[in-house]
Amino acid sequence: MTSASVYNRMMLPMSFGDPEAEYWRLMTGVSMWDVGVERQVQLAGPDAGRLAQILCARDLSVCKVGQGKYVPICNHDGFLINDPIVLKLSDCLFWFSIADSDMWLWARAIAAERGLDVEISEPDVSPLAVQGPKAEAVVASLFGDWVRELKYFWFKETEIAGIPVTVQRSGWSKQGGFELYLRDGRKGAALWNLVKEAGQPWGIGPGAPSSAERVESGLLNSVGDTDETTSPFEVRLGKFVDLDVPDEVVGIQALRRIAAAGPKRHQLGLVLEGDTPQPIGLSWEEIRQNGIKVGSMTTCVWSPRLQSNIGYGLVAASCKPDQTVEIVRPNGVVCAKVVELPFF
Amino acid sequence: MTSASVYNRMMLPMSFGDPEAEYWRLMTGVSMWDVGVERQVQLAGPDAGRLAQILCARDLSVCKVGQGKYVPICNHDGFLINDPIVLKLSDCLFWFSIADSDMWLWARAIAAERGLDVEISEPDVSPLAVQGPKAEAVVASLFGDWVRELKYFWFKETEIAGIPVTVQRSGWSKQGGFELYLRDGRKGAALWNLVKEAGQPWGIGPGAPSSAERVESGLLNSVGDTDETTSPFEVRLGKFVDLDVPDEVVGIQALRRIAAAGPKRHQLGLVLEGDTPQPIGLSWEEIRQNGIKVGSMTTCVWSPRLQSNIGYGLVAASCKPDQTVEIVRPNGVVCAKVVELPFF
Repeated sequence: MTSASVYNRMMLPMSFGDPEAEYWRLMTGVSMWDVGVERQVQLAGPDAGRLAQILCARDLSVCKVGQGKYVPICNHDGFLINDPIVLKLSDCLFWFSIADSDMWLWARAIAAERGLDVEISEPDVSPLAVQGPKAEAVVASLFGDWVRELKYFWFKETEIAGIPVTVQRSGWSKQGGFELYLRDGRKGAALWNLVKEAGQPWGIGPGAPSSAERVESGLLNSVGDTDETTSPFEVRLGKFVDLDVPDEVVGIQALRRIAAAGPKRHQLGLVLEGDTPQPIGLSWEEIRQNGIKVGSMTTCVWSPRLQSNIGYGLVAASCKPDQTVEIVRPNGVVCAKVVELPFF
Repeated sequence: MTSASVYNRMMLPMSFGDPEAEYWRLMTGVSMWDVGVERQVQLAGPDAGRLAQILCARDLSVCKVGQGKYVPICNHDGFLINDPIVLKLSDCLFWFSIADSDMWLWARAIAAERGLDVEISEPDVSPLAVQGPKAEAVVASLFGDWVRELKYFWFKETEIAGIPVTVQRSGWSKQGGFELYLRDGRKGAALWNLVKEAGQPWGIGPGAPSSAERVESGLLNSVGDTDETTSPFEVRLGKFVDLDVPDEVVGIQALRRIAAAGPKRHQLGLVLEGDTPQPIGLSWEEIRQNGIKVGSMTTCVWSPRLQSNIGYGLVAASCKPDQTVEIVRPNGVVCAKVVELPFF
């Protein structure tokens, strides 16, 4: 490992020495990622299903056992605080496979305040992602051809060489693949080695969630791309909000108001001028039109496919695709074209 | 900076090249620390005081404007989730200067569920600590002799060279000192340089919270030394719990039950055999008596003053001072003597 990030208070390996080669392996082959930082917040007990729904602005009544759903989690003001995958393991057992914020504190506060009969914990479950166009072949060779039939976000609990895993079609890329939720932390190295060996015929190698691929693909990073007043509608998650969920769902009244008024900002793509890679640093960068601030560039990466710096803008509703904007970068102002997301 | 840690999703500088010299500077002189990771969760509005009390198991009705208090924050089960300093800036404005967990999520959930009229935010306030026996001289030379009269955890809002700061007698060491809460993030370098210059006559230098000093001094690290079922009574914080606070305080019913039953575990000191520094890694280490697990060593550092490895044990109530225990360390079992805390 040559670089790492911190996510949910844990180390997330980010590269193994050659980020560009790791990008192309994900795009054309198969890559394996230790994404154990995607912690599970587990809801267990008679009120687990009710609490899961209370926490989500998306209708879970249609979610079957064995199914997962991508859900915006909003606070009472309708602003995003996380965007996990919910896994329904049984009628009274749910996992929220979370993005980067202490959701167990949030879930416990809501559950206890409402007197719900549910136990909230963080079980020892660490996902290993297998991603890329050849991921299915690798995972099928390990677990059997049934994985080819799994629909997106559906999962199955199984075992391999004595290692309990939950196999889900999922992953933080648009190149296809699976996440193997390891349910026995002592066996992480054994699972890693099994996948590594099974993947040899397809040239598997270690990698990590790719900033370049995820921006090209239009995936949201709910921590980096949002601020404290970002509603799901502003960042293209409106389709995951069901306004007719019960009134007891946290934030639903606010979301109905926001939806009725229409969001004031939206998230669009940016293609920057210039052919020198200049990824964004830690801070958002100001976006201007005619000298007036219209929003912020929340992320920016060098796109190997577009051979340009590309980014996301969280901009005023008045700022539209095909317009030109100026971005105030550390080295000076750069022009960019506004485009629809995703890039691919 | 030569090493760093992550705290509240930010980088915390940990050393500037010579940890042992930094330890002795703190013990005998004056050290300055960038502890901007101690974020402030701000409660503002008509119900700010009521919410502050609801979140704390310590009686805040006696807290005056200009006063701070160290408070355990517990969940509804009476288990610790943070141990901030509460600062009462006015009757309707409080800061929780927090340890390492997303308290703003917790505070917002409780406030919203109870329908309180309070706004919760994380203002741009970053503490700079000045610590050590000569800290008072340095801070007095900067702000005036009035700082010498400040009682522990009391504070005053002031300004220096146009930089707004809140000066509090506080800090995560037992060597005395102050925290300067910078209220304008653009002026961090200016404040740092002012303190650095003012401290020259006393030999000030950069440093960081010292693991060795804090363990010698018996200070709690509420993230590292506690687990999900640790009550304040188990980790020597019982004196900061007032069982007669109003019933609406989160966790107070559970705390009354735990207090009545008597805690099952307690926190004691450990003096390990051997004279080779062997600090603890990321995991707790098992403590045994007569071959049976009685608890865990939650931290372990080399003590320059005791010339031994010393640690904290979170152990069964049956395990007492002056007894001997065995600790299962990565390199083998090590004997340790159990002692009262603090070491100094």
